[in-house]
Amino acid sequence: MTSQFGKRLKVAISGESHGDSICVVVEGMPAGFAVDMDALARFMARRAPGGELATPRRETDAPTFLSGLADGKTNGHPLYAVIQNTNTRSGDYANLSDIPRPSHADLPARMKYGESVDLRGGGHFSARLTAPLCVAGGIALQILEKLGISVGAHLAAVGDVWDTPFDPVAVTAEDLHLPATRTPAVLNKEAGDHMAAVIREAAADGDSVGGIVECAAIGLPWGLGEPLYDGTENRLAATLFGIPAVRGVEFGTGFAAAKMRGSEHNDPYRKHGDRIVTATNHAGGIIGGITNGMPLVLRVAFKPTPSIAKPQETLRLSTGKVDTLTIKGRHDPCVVVRAVPVVEAAVALTLLDMYLESKGDMTV
Amino acid sequence: MTSQFGKRLKVAISGESHGDSICVVVEGMPAGFAVDMDALARFMARRAPGGELATPRRETDAPTFLSGLADGKTNGHPLYAVIQNTNTRSGDYANLSDIPRPSHADLPARMKYGESVDLRGGGHFSARLTAPLCVAGGIALQILEKLGISVGAHLAAVGDVWDTPFDPVAVTAEDLHLPATRTPAVLNKEAGDHMAAVIREAAADGDSVGGIVECAAIGLPWGLGEPLYDGTENRLAATLFGIPAVRGVEFGTGFAAAKMRGSEHNDPYRKHGDRIVTATNHAGGIIGGITNGMPLVLRVAFKPTPSIAKPQETLRLSTGKVDTLTIKGRHDPCVVVRAVPVVEAAVALTLLDMYLESKGDMTV
Amino acid sequence: MTSQFGKRLKVAISGESHGDSICVVVEGMPAGFAVDMDALARFMARRAPGGELATPRRETDAPTFLSGLADGKTNGHPLYAVIQNTNTRSGDYANLSDIPRPSHADLPARMKYGESVDLRGGGHFSARLTAPLCVAGGIALQILEKLGISVGAHLAAVGDVWDTPFDPVAVTAEDLHLPATRTPAVLNKEAGDHMAAVIREAAADGDSVGGIVECAAIGLPWGLGEPLYDGTENRLAATLFGIPAVRGVEFGTGFAAAKMRGSEHNDPYRKHGDRIVTATNHAGGIIGGITNGMPLVLRVAFKPTPSIAKPQETLRLSTGKVDTLTIKGRHDPCVVVRAVPVVEAAVALTLLDMYLESKGDMTV
Amino acid sequence: MTSQFGKRLKVAISGESHGDSICVVVEGMPAGFAVDMDALARFMARRAPGGELATPRRETDAPTFLSGLADGKTNGHPLYAVIQNTNTRSGDYANLSDIPRPSHADLPARMKYGESVDLRGGGHFSARLTAPLCVAGGIALQILEKLGISVGAHLAAVGDVWDTPFDPVAVTAEDLHLPATRTPAVLNKEAGDHMAAVIREAAADGDSVGGIVECAAIGLPWGLGEPLYDGTENRLAATLFGIPAVRGVEFGTGFAAAKMRGSEHNDPYRKHGDRIVTATNHAGGIIGGITNGMPLVLRVAFKPTPSIAKPQETLRLSTGKVDTLTIKGRHDPCVVVRAVPVVEAAVALTLLDMYLESKGDMTV
Repeated sequence: MTSQFGKRLKVAISGESHGDSICVVVEGMPAGFAVDMDALARFMARRAPGGELATPRRETDAPTFLSGLADGKTNGHPLYAVIQNTNTRSGDYANLSDIPRPSHADLPARMKYGESVDLRGGGHFSARLTAPLCVAGGIALQILEKLGISVGAHLAAVGDVWDTPFDPVAVTAEDLHLPATRTPAVLNKEAGDHMAAVIREAAADGDSVGGIVECAAIGLPWGLGEPLYDGTENRLAATLFGIPAVRGVEFGTGFAAAKMRGSEHNDPYRKHGDRIVTATNHAGGIIGGITNGMPLVLRVAFKPTPSIAKPQETLRLSTGKVDTLTIKGRHDPCVVVRAVPVVEAAVALTLLDMYLESKGDMTV
Repeated sequence: MTSQFGKRLKVAISGESHGDSICVVVEGMPAGFAVDMDALARFMARRAPGGELATPRRETDAPTFLSGLADGKTNGHPLYAVIQNTNTRSGDYANLSDIPRPSHADLPARMKYGESVDLRGGGHFSARLTAPLCVAGGIALQILEKLGISVGAHLAAVGDVWDTPFDPVAVTAEDLHLPATRTPAVLNKEAGDHMAAVIREAAADGDSVGGIVECAAIGLPWGLGEPLYDGTENRLAATLFGIPAVRGVEFGTGFAAAKMRGSEHNDPYRKHGDRIVTATNHAGGIIGGITNGMPLVLRVAFKPTPSIAKPQETLRLSTGKVDTLTIKGRHDPCVVVRAVPVVEAAVALTLLDMYLESKGDMTV
Repeated sequence: MTSQFGKRLKVAISGESHGDSICVVVEGMPAGFAVDMDALARFMARRAPGGELATPRRETDAPTFLSGLADGKTNGHPLYAVIQNTNTRSGDYANLSDIPRPSHADLPARMKYGESVDLRGGGHFSARLTAPLCVAGGIALQILEKLGISVGAHLAAVGDVWDTPFDPVAVTAEDLHLPATRTPAVLNKEAGDHMAAVIREAAADGDSVGGIVECAAIGLPWGLGEPLYDGTENRLAATLFGIPAVRGVEFGTGFAAAKMRGSEHNDPYRKHGDRIVTATNHAGGIIGGITNGMPLVLRVAFKPTPSIAKPQETLRLSTGKVDTLTIKGRHDPCVVVRAVPVVEAAVALTLLDMYLESKGDMTV
Repeated sequence: MTSQFGKRLKVAISGESHGDSICVVVEGMPAGFAVDMDALARFMARRAPGGELATPRRETDAPTFLSGLADGKTNGHPLYAVIQNTNTRSGDYANLSDIPRPSHADLPARMKYGESVDLRGGGHFSARLTAPLCVAGGIALQILEKLGISVGAHLAAVGDVWDTPFDPVAVTAEDLHLPATRTPAVLNKEAGDHMAAVIREAAADGDSVGGIVECAAIGLPWGLGEPLYDGTENRLAATLFGIPAVRGVEFGTGFAAAKMRGSEHNDPYRKHGDRIVTATNHAGGIIGGITNGMPLVLRVAFKPTPSIAKPQETLRLSTGKVDTLTIKGRHDPCVVVRAVPVVEAAVALTLLDMYLESKGDMTV
């Protein structure tokens, strides 16, 4: 199994959901940055389990930094942080090896790695592994902010309920930061209430529901990314598909662009003071793989949590017959609620990686 | 600019759309494979310009192999093939540096690489660079076929018109190969006729239209891919976003999964003879980043061609005023028509790369 | 700072010499391998400080495995192990920022990473970081042994005293494992006694001395490595130069080959039972970057420890004048003594990486 | 087979020694650089065959640039250059498949890639592939010169004859460029005459002889490279071992450091005007993997050419008996003579890659 990404800013994530701890190592962080630990804790809290919309498994998810910080500042060394797993109940997973969970990695992993693979709680496939990603991403978000780049995401859709989208031309830092102050993380409170109702309903049925996260970044310079295979979309998509349950990624107008005509989709240039801007932003801030100074806009589709309480008819391996599986354990009725900061983390780490590649060595 | 992808099977693409020639270098091709040159020529013809649905620029796109083949067989050396550019008319692009084309890479490239960058005809950003990709991909498709893996794509949508989708559970090699015999490449002939009408209508208006390509692969073994950041989706998406005009990539049920409940989306296991299969295939053949032996299904959204004949109101850089741009030159009213084999090529190269990683050194 | 290497078997090392702990993450370890913890402890003990020939700083260097092992077997997850730093005395380094130590990374690191960089005890540049390398390497050695590949090293030279070299044609597993049972790790006991005397003499003078480690591997298959830039030498050298204090790497006859004629240096083929062998082995088991089934033989040159007790005339930055530096703290008079298992670890990890690339997915 | 190196400046080399042409693709070259084609031709001429000290096979080795240059300036696109193979005589290699040449890649390659591998003339293993490396490297040398960095190499030793070494503290650009004006490329003319005599003697005996190239670079900034596995030595060694026939690489005092004491080997700091320098330079300009502003000094050991006219007793595969092999064809009695510019090319490409990584996007 591998769990690394990044070219200049390299992130490696380790640990298992039901082991003692999980960790992240980040290499290439610029030295000299004073991490705001309170802001980081608030960011981690957004992803942490708990709350009526999420799993009742509770973990504080406070990282301990074992390297990379001196007196609260990044010191040029690889950042190495550990999060304890305090609340694991492996017993819940005892009966799963003979009846592999549908749409879960149990069986594919066993086919790949052999019988020794230990997937209690999802192992390396668990969404728990997004916690160390958020430690790294939370710091990347702070550094980007200092560099004049703001990144924010919101719950764009749950089931059929849609939040107001970010304005692709005029989104502000305030807009980007607003959803983080709400549960669920939406721009439009009413939409959020409807989403919460949809999630509660699914939970009441022992079921789960999928959703979409929209993320935007402003303040990016012209010229990040390269044409063809090292473009901004390629890099972001490669990271975003590393978040468990992601099934689709689109940029700008995305799949809807397939229905449009060129005269409609093209973004004509305009002058805005000294800056060259585009009048519309169907491109989502990326042309030919390269950032064009407009807001970067992307959306990420999540499937419904595969672990549901509802009984499922599936295969018992030992008999080769269909049998009924009832999954115990604690699960989120809608992973997308907690995925909002995870998308921010993945986007921030990728953009910071690309920024550092473009600008070279720096202290911040 | 970079134009490489792949880990074990490494592809590097070079050249400019208006230079003498373009080339591809593929390293890591297994030795001993007898390339079917006729089949390759037929594959290249599917991507080649021409036909009433595409640009009238005509190029035979026949590759010359300068290395990597001996007596028609791969000989273990890097495969190195050149395609001549026989039909370039740079004059058409003369007026574009002062009025950069909307939604084209001209201006972002100039901001990134400086004034020396030469983007007549799109330079490295041109869809012309998909021709060498198809040389490499056409051979990869043949090798996969010999390994028992079939890959095929069709035009799933143009504007609002949809083709019949591949059956995600029961798609056959015949289904996969059928669209290649038609123009446009569809499963349902009537849908194809409607699409052609939509494209002709856009062309008549001096406009263009977007679309969606669906691609599937069967015969894949269990266990390609790794969890998190080196998964099958991550790898495929990173390559697919390297095709010009791609704005979204989704796997299995994709964005539609966001509207579903877990009990609906989960794919229960069944026994089919000796094989473990899933009764449905919302996963599109990938669970936790790992292939599960079911058909791999993905869709790729393309924006409408940005180069349109219709006049556009955009910025003249020298005056800072809005001016009217009328683009001359030859352009496809719908790039998606010719993108079908390009998607096949990108998918085949990525899957062969992952297959070789999983299985190790081999001759075929 | 970066500290990763490997392509399929990826090793990332983290931590600082004077932090709480240091760690290693290894991705891509084959699942199902029962680690011999006693053998691993014995291997770690060979690198551990202590003994009259090394620094009196004492650390048990026992790794705690936080992921990647279940019931003592590798479980397919990234291997993640932590070693506590129990014996750090940062006070010793207080006076060094104004008088940077000659031939130490203090000043180059400050020039590169800025004032925030924290290099007490050498930070990421410290030879202490070879302990986590040895955890990963110790396990790689065990896996290779199970695959029929033995790796061993010995102290080939200290100052002007040379040990008997490995027989490049006929070296056996017993020969490879013998030096590990001795301190220093030599084939010829008398040579070892002379080396010990040379080291004691240097220590008595408050000085240090350099040396050479020779390493060999037997049982390698034909065909690991690729021509040109991904050859066996390229890969091994890239890892070996990651060991602190290494100044040169040579394969087979190495630098001495520069003095030879082709007729002397060429290794003619012979038949040995069913196997094709070479009568001599000046190539050190590698031809054209590819292993040829003969023993792989390499040598690594180490400079003398730069931290010496003897006063040194060097620059005081604040005055710009030459001043006398006397380094306190505990230092090895000859790092090469403890570097023998470190070379084995680096070679084993690189060879296992290449083996896995060649053979594909496996359990062991 | 793979033949790529570099991280930001990526070089891919293709072609076979006895095919029609060989090529190089370089991605990441800064845009805007006016290549001095005359200087490049002079550089290529230093590597080209011919002259009494080298093989009589004659090739002009003039590259044709098919992409990456517009009006003689780098234009931001991948640089793609082709060199025709005008003088191949494959017949000379007809008898070699049954009697594989000792110390040549014929047999290892066949064991690895299977019978289809075509190694007439050495294929991808041939020193002929250093010609495209020199095209890329020759341009890198010019760019570095413009950035204030000079790189030069000389023939340090042939057999037992040694040239004067570069002064590791005070070497000048004049010193670096002097050897290029002489054949062989030496600082001390008399040493060169002795070397020529040694080579002629070997040639007269139908034999070959090895040698050592020393290379130095001045004007490098502080701070290129990273500790541990991405250091300056690691990167340079990984490239240098990609040159055919290289058996060892050392930096600064290198293997000789193994015999020294720390008090002798340490380089004390001094002030030289505003700059911090070292009084000696045993480090060869690299401390902890990081450049320290002093001249970078390295040496590369080459084995004697394995292709010799002298009959050799080796194995005939079909009989399993020892037989006599007499190699026809044209071969250099001492590859090291022509390897001097190749080492410069490899060093320049690696240093430019590291420079671009450190400084970020630029035009030159």
